[in-house]
Amino acid sequence: MEKKIQISMLIEIYGKLLTEKQLSILDDYYNMDLSLSEIAENNQITRQAVRDIIKKGEKKLFEFEEKLQVMKKMMKQEKQISNILSELTQIETKFTDEQIAQILSHIRKELNCLV
Amino acid sequence: MEKKIQISMLIEIYGKLLTEKQLSILDDYYNMDLSLSEIAENNQITRQAVRDIIKKGEKKLFEFEEKLQVMKKMMKQEKQISNILSELTQIETKFTDEQIAQILSHIRKELNCLV
Repeated sequence: MEKKIQISMLIEIYGKLLTEKQLSILDDYYNMDLSLSEIAENNQITRQAVRDIIKKGEKKLFEFEEKLQVMKKMMKQEKQISNILSELTQIETKFTDEQIAQILSHIRKELNCLV
Repeated sequence: MEKKIQISMLIEIYGKLLTEKQLSILDDYYNMDLSLSEIAENNQITRQAVRDIIKKGEKKLFEFEEKLQVMKKMMKQEKQISNILSELTQIETKFTDEQIAQILSHIRKELNCLV
């Protein structure tokens, strides 16, 4: 997975365990696509300070993931759900019964809400 | 949910974010069912010290859950999966086709592995 996407996911999962400043700067950099210079100016700190905060924040995010593995489990689940959804499609194409179609459509919605 | 079960789940999810000592003592108390006195003796500290470590560890676990809500999401997922499983049963009882039975049985296994 591309590093930027990976860190965005980690921010989404573990962001609240970072300090307010770390979270705000990582969010500006990875989600809002601001440059180091723009973030430095907005926060009235040097570019190097911004870079240090980002590095430290990233390190903490990867440490949380190494310990809790929430992202890894989420990705595994997404893959399993995608498998199940394709199996539902196999069943749907085999049967045209109205009632079964309704149940399968309901299961599909519930699976899509799972992650 | 009973507090003991709830804290066992929180230890399972967030235990690695505690200190080694906190984790070991919470595990002894909540999972191994050791008494405060037994834990105190094993660790050569007072019962009051054990109590303090447990209180502090519990507080940290609840703070992690308040911020990340992993347990809340897991429980919601389990409920949704249980709903889907019962819907699969509805379909299974309606159809006796061998191929559909195989697919449903496979989906059931995958759903049971999800959480």
